[in-house]
Amino acid sequence: MTARIIQVDAFDLVVFGATGDLSRRKLLPALFQRDNAGQLPAAARILGAARTAMAADEFRAQAAKAISKDAASHPDAAARFLARLDYLALDAASDAGWNDLAAKLGEAPDRIRVFYLATSPELFGPICERLRAHGVASPQSRVVLEKPIGKNLASSRAVNDAVGCVFPEAEIYRIDHYLGKETVQNLMALRFANALFEPLWRAEHIDHVQITTSESLGVEGRAGYYDTAGAMRDMVQNHLLQLLCLVAMEPPGELAADAVRDEKLKVLKALKPIERRLLDTAVVRGQYRAGVANGATVPGYAEELGRTSGTETFVALRAEIANWRWAGVPFYLRTGKRLPERLSEIVVAFRPIPHSAFPDRAGPIHSNHLVIRLQPDEGVKLWLMIKDPGPGGMRLKQVSLDMSFAEAFGVRNPDAYERLLMDVVRGDQTLFMRRDEVEAAWSWIDPIMDAWREAEDKPKPYAAGTWGPSASVALIERDGRTWHEDASWNRDAHLDA
Amino acid sequence: MTARIIQVDAFDLVVFGATGDLSRRKLLPALFQRDNAGQLPAAARILGAARTAMAADEFRAQAAKAISKDAASHPDAAARFLARLDYLALDAASDAGWNDLAAKLGEAPDRIRVFYLATSPELFGPICERLRAHGVASPQSRVVLEKPIGKNLASSRAVNDAVGCVFPEAEIYRIDHYLGKETVQNLMALRFANALFEPLWRAEHIDHVQITTSESLGVEGRAGYYDTAGAMRDMVQNHLLQLLCLVAMEPPGELAADAVRDEKLKVLKALKPIERRLLDTAVVRGQYRAGVANGATVPGYAEELGRTSGTETFVALRAEIANWRWAGVPFYLRTGKRLPERLSEIVVAFRPIPHSAFPDRAGPIHSNHLVIRLQPDEGVKLWLMIKDPGPGGMRLKQVSLDMSFAEAFGVRNPDAYERLLMDVVRGDQTLFMRRDEVEAAWSWIDPIMDAWREAEDKPKPYAAGTWGPSASVALIERDGRTWHEDASWNRDAHLDA
Repeated sequence: MTARIIQVDAFDLVVFGATGDLSRRKLLPALFQRDNAGQLPAAARILGAARTAMAADEFRAQAAKAISKDAASHPDAAARFLARLDYLALDAASDAGWNDLAAKLGEAPDRIRVFYLATSPELFGPICERLRAHGVASPQSRVVLEKPIGKNLASSRAVNDAVGCVFPEAEIYRIDHYLGKETVQNLMALRFANALFEPLWRAEHIDHVQITTSESLGVEGRAGYYDTAGAMRDMVQNHLLQLLCLVAMEPPGELAADAVRDEKLKVLKALKPIERRLLDTAVVRGQYRAGVANGATVPGYAEELGRTSGTETFVALRAEIANWRWAGVPFYLRTGKRLPERLSEIVVAFRPIPHSAFPDRAGPIHSNHLVIRLQPDEGVKLWLMIKDPGPGGMRLKQVSLDMSFAEAFGVRNPDAYERLLMDVVRGDQTLFMRRDEVEAAWSWIDPIMDAWREAEDKPKPYAAGTWGPSASVALIERDGRTWHEDASWNRDAHLDA
Repeated sequence: MTARIIQVDAFDLVVFGATGDLSRRKLLPALFQRDNAGQLPAAARILGAARTAMAADEFRAQAAKAISKDAASHPDAAARFLARLDYLALDAASDAGWNDLAAKLGEAPDRIRVFYLATSPELFGPICERLRAHGVASPQSRVVLEKPIGKNLASSRAVNDAVGCVFPEAEIYRIDHYLGKETVQNLMALRFANALFEPLWRAEHIDHVQITTSESLGVEGRAGYYDTAGAMRDMVQNHLLQLLCLVAMEPPGELAADAVRDEKLKVLKALKPIERRLLDTAVVRGQYRAGVANGATVPGYAEELGRTSGTETFVALRAEIANWRWAGVPFYLRTGKRLPERLSEIVVAFRPIPHSAFPDRAGPIHSNHLVIRLQPDEGVKLWLMIKDPGPGGMRLKQVSLDMSFAEAFGVRNPDAYERLLMDVVRGDQTLFMRRDEVEAAWSWIDPIMDAWREAEDKPKPYAAGTWGPSASVALIERDGRTWHEDASWNRDAHLDA
């Protein structure tokens, strides 16, 4: 089965930080995939930019390496892709090279221009300023910002102001690659293209929601940066709250950028502030100590960093949304490094049936739940009770139904960056965060972090390779609920039970 | 996978009409299967009874032939089963043999006794009377009645009165094998063991329900009997209305016989009488003419019968249930002989989504529906919309989820008679019709048939091998709906779309 591919309009894409990790691991491979699929028009150009002086051929050689895995069986496509690449040495702190960039892009003055800022956020403002000063920012320009945008509301405003001096909001694409996942899209399809779910999608029928994004790795080489951020800023403020918004938002009138983002914003604004007196029970922060991961002994965070630190590598919290739809429904969020597995999933747990008409011998009746998994293997599963098939009388059995079908259809699951990069070129902001969303998220996060700082709160220790401090378990068990664990995800649905 | 098998208590089962079609095709094979599965205790005896004089060995030889297909690979089990069999010549119209029966059963006076009346219903009363007169009916006795029970309310009452003189209602098992189907059981599990369906199971969310039970065969050898009944009495009054009840009933407090039957009765009593002035638009009766079935020319009903007749071989009707849950939701029922395929299914069609947020390019959004198929291949499928997997933007796709799993679990689907016969021995009346249900069904059917008779209504002709008179299509299309057709049932779910 081949999906219909509609070519995007011609564009020039400039990657700032082109020699960096993100460019190499994600952006170049994603662009190659879309090129190979036939989605890039012949005229499309990709320009790498970074401080390092280097010949274009050298950059192409780096790019060839970056796409080598996917390109191996498509040599012609790889050659075509590499021919689109060029390179320019640019420094945000000096004027050198910027006129060359202007001249290069000026060859096609009306073409869509995408400036992808895969750099440290301190450079977002200076780069935008240069783009303006050298006349590179055209009316057809779009700028893509990688998170984190700021460290709190104030610094986030400063970054957004600086970028906003050059680009109007409609041209700013704040990327969160989680939002580009196939299953996130499918969540929207399930919720808004079926009459079955939406009537149940509310406090009357949903008991609680869990959102987990865990990593098995530690901070490793990134300890320096990470220590200035921590799990709350790095993950909760953006990824986790964005996923919460997609689960909790009202049905938008249309799936268009501002309609969707208006609904997400309403959710963020409705997040109940966590009162200081409840902080200890509603939020858990942790930091990993040495432990065992994948059978090997691994160092603790402080050892990796080279000194002790008060930065958290784990957060679990209990959020509530103060509106009619969600009143009283807890949203349990957790994220951390050095947890037992790399996993990102949303669990929507429905309420138990109000009354069982079944005899005891029918067996236990588990509550329905919908699991939306973003990684490592994307998919959506609905857990139900059915009659245990066969002549043995009415016995009940829990089974899971696969509602994603990507595997069944034999479709390659595109990386989120592929979808998102094409959305930028197409000018579709639906899956990107608007400034007011980012700021609303900070407005909810800031008081928690302020309280930690003022109380000189220390993160609770947890052994690497465990699910965080025991206080995280207590956080949910106190409510009579349990963190979702599903060792059977990878097995066939009918063997899950 | 093996289901746990719990042996039933010791019993003696007497099959009246033991040389007949039902005994040979259904009862003996079903009993053998349960024996082979280990469910029959060593002491259990099966006694054939019929008018024909014949040695027990001859009956065993007939039985051996009846079970030969299933027994081929289980010779030991077959020998054990045949050793349980005995035979007695009995005539409802004479005293001969009845004392032998009493003596035989008297060997185990306290044992459960099951009298299965696989005979013409005129014999139900006389047989029961003999059972009483000869002291055969014990406190541990149960009597099983095959439909049809009567031809209308009055004659049904007469039969029930005659049986009721001998057996209390708690010992009378009115069988409708459709209710013993695995998928009917699964419908109960889905409705009452999941929080997902019940809130939607009502007029606010369900657009309409369709129940189809079609046969591809004509009446053939049974024309004589059939002409005295017709499709309305033969199928609608029992099978179709029973299935309607299971879909429409309120959740019972417990899945126990009277709790379930109380709920079914409430549905039957809530059936809106079809007013005479609406009869032409709400009910369609038909009779097949010659046509083509399975590529061969087949005769019409009148040719098979040998004369013209006003009996219908097809009925389609539009029922409504006058209660809060179902107000305004049409239940379309149809049944007939010589239709294009043998099929029995319930389609629960949910309402369309109230508003689409998707752009036109996402494609059409089909309403959700749940299909419960009873034959030829049992199963439950839920039709949903998902995102068409892959990088092609938000396009929607209709898929079906298999919610039955019997095939996936590799479990042999037991014949409905297996379950129902064991239920009789266990004394579980849940899946059997209570007298008041039968009478409530006749109370709804009688006025329709009376009106036909008084108007000298002639059934509309339809060609064998078609879906009945065109008026049946008009019946549902007039409401802007369409009879469900699913040529793809047998294909894998992910290929259905």
